[in-house]
Amino acid sequence: MRQAGRYLPEYRALRATAPDFISFCLNPEMAAEATLQPMRRFEFSAAIVFADILLLPKALGQDVRFEVGEGPKLGALPSLERMRDRIEGAAGALGNIGETLGRVREKLDPSKVLIGFAGAPWTVATYMIEGGSSDRVAVRTYAYTHAKALDELIDILVDATAHYLVMQARSGAQVLKLFESWAEGLPEDLFERLVIGPHARIIAQVRAAGVTAPFIGFPRGAGALVQSYAQKVAVQAVALDVQASAAMGQALQKTVAIQGALDPLLLRAGGKALDVRLDQLLAQWGQGPYIFNLGHGILPDTPIAHVEQVLARVVHGQ
Amino acid sequence: MRQAGRYLPEYRALRATAPDFISFCLNPEMAAEATLQPMRRFEFSAAIVFADILLLPKALGQDVRFEVGEGPKLGALPSLERMRDRIEGAAGALGNIGETLGRVREKLDPSKVLIGFAGAPWTVATYMIEGGSSDRVAVRTYAYTHAKALDELIDILVDATAHYLVMQARSGAQVLKLFESWAEGLPEDLFERLVIGPHARIIAQVRAAGVTAPFIGFPRGAGALVQSYAQKVAVQAVALDVQASAAMGQALQKTVAIQGALDPLLLRAGGKALDVRLDQLLAQWGQGPYIFNLGHGILPDTPIAHVEQVLARVVHGQ
Repeated sequence: MRQAGRYLPEYRALRATAPDFISFCLNPEMAAEATLQPMRRFEFSAAIVFADILLLPKALGQDVRFEVGEGPKLGALPSLERMRDRIEGAAGALGNIGETLGRVREKLDPSKVLIGFAGAPWTVATYMIEGGSSDRVAVRTYAYTHAKALDELIDILVDATAHYLVMQARSGAQVLKLFESWAEGLPEDLFERLVIGPHARIIAQVRAAGVTAPFIGFPRGAGALVQSYAQKVAVQAVALDVQASAAMGQALQKTVAIQGALDPLLLRAGGKALDVRLDQLLAQWGQGPYIFNLGHGILPDTPIAHVEQVLARVVHGQ
Repeated sequence: MRQAGRYLPEYRALRATAPDFISFCLNPEMAAEATLQPMRRFEFSAAIVFADILLLPKALGQDVRFEVGEGPKLGALPSLERMRDRIEGAAGALGNIGETLGRVREKLDPSKVLIGFAGAPWTVATYMIEGGSSDRVAVRTYAYTHAKALDELIDILVDATAHYLVMQARSGAQVLKLFESWAEGLPEDLFERLVIGPHARIIAQVRAAGVTAPFIGFPRGAGALVQSYAQKVAVQAVALDVQASAAMGQALQKTVAIQGALDPLLLRAGGKALDVRLDQLLAQWGQGPYIFNLGHGILPDTPIAHVEQVLARVVHGQ
């Protein structure tokens, strides 16, 4: 995420040396350093490659810019034909991300896991169609009124994402994560068509290429639909958002690992309330396969001491 | 909802005769007419009183304004003491809503049900604390950092809402609905504390006053948490948002009626996709207790012909 490292002074210093956010992501030396910084400071068990989900539309030929203090701005959507021609080339154009992964894997402690990722097709399509961040009302309407055009774009993104993740796995990513940041507000029929189907096809393609790395799916905001997601998509783990219920997590743990779901607002707030919630999460899910994590991205103004408080309690039971 | 009637030309004509939105809501003649307009035009089985959830903070002494084309603007939060003194008086100050209900009940066909409603405490508190519509990040943080102050405000709203709903039932409302428009993004611990607890206390107080009208609870955006809501809050029906899964609705139908969950974006889009989804909703939930409805408010630019399309299919199977 664009805010991923911003709570760390060493990240802010590093970021200041790059001319813009995309150059930063595409510079393997800098991106590897950004990936490793939190691993040096904290006892995390896994690192996630520093990148952005909108590098893929850029590699497919759409203009993508990040202005300071604003969300991403995307240019006009290229024609489907033009993007279709670039599907395999896009993974090649993102070779720098592979180089970042290789550098990180070399320097990372062998006991630590390295995670690669991509934005999921529906989420990436919302940015591509709306030209940036939005309330997604227009693109959800588009899903009803221009079903065929949207499905064709999703298909292109499925293929390009599969190639991109295969490249990441071959470059050193040991786990692959699909970020569906904008599942919220999708009715079940659209969720089946735009989330479950595309995720399942991506994983099938990655498996067909011989990649065996585990998949984490993160259908953020999918509510009760997470249950059918876990049944129909061959993921090994499901990342849960802050709203996941204890009962749903426990039901999921019978077949998959779960990840999540600490509220980033509570991590930022800290204090006794944070300890109480940590104990609750560990008590409700700690008996099954559970990867402790936030339920959404860390906020830039999160005190480092609060991250240390979490690790003390979760890792050392203090 | 403020946009409730705006898809109807007769509503827009009526609304134009009032100086502002609050005067319109508090004028029993106009509000009764706005309540009855859709009942004259369509074969709906129930009417919902025309009002707004922010009339209650106004009755508790907070300044509330609606500017054309903007969301609501609320003044500074009154002191808890001042609001506490107004709890019973607030229902009296909203006596005009009771008069609206009486007028509607007189004119409404006896076979049609009249629904009264209130905003649920957490949702109303988000507006009261943030001073208007927002992304609710500040108020969710406040729930962690100022737990006691928020809980006291919620308690005041529980009591005032119970009085208000008792008054509505005594004035002619046959069903009472609690709108929790902003349950989304609440982790389970906050959901228990800010939604489930307050809803349960309101209903207990209304029952203690001798009111037997059925309750519909609408925890919009609660995802999988809707299941524990239905178990712990003594509602007779749960309204579901657009994202409710078929399976969750069926599980709920074993103990409560359900309502919802057509996507207002699809109603506005219309066409064959609308018919397909209507058939799906009726097939998945039509065998149990199911009140057909939207999953969120109707959009002002919804074509009337699409509402007629829904009624033809749902009521007449055409």
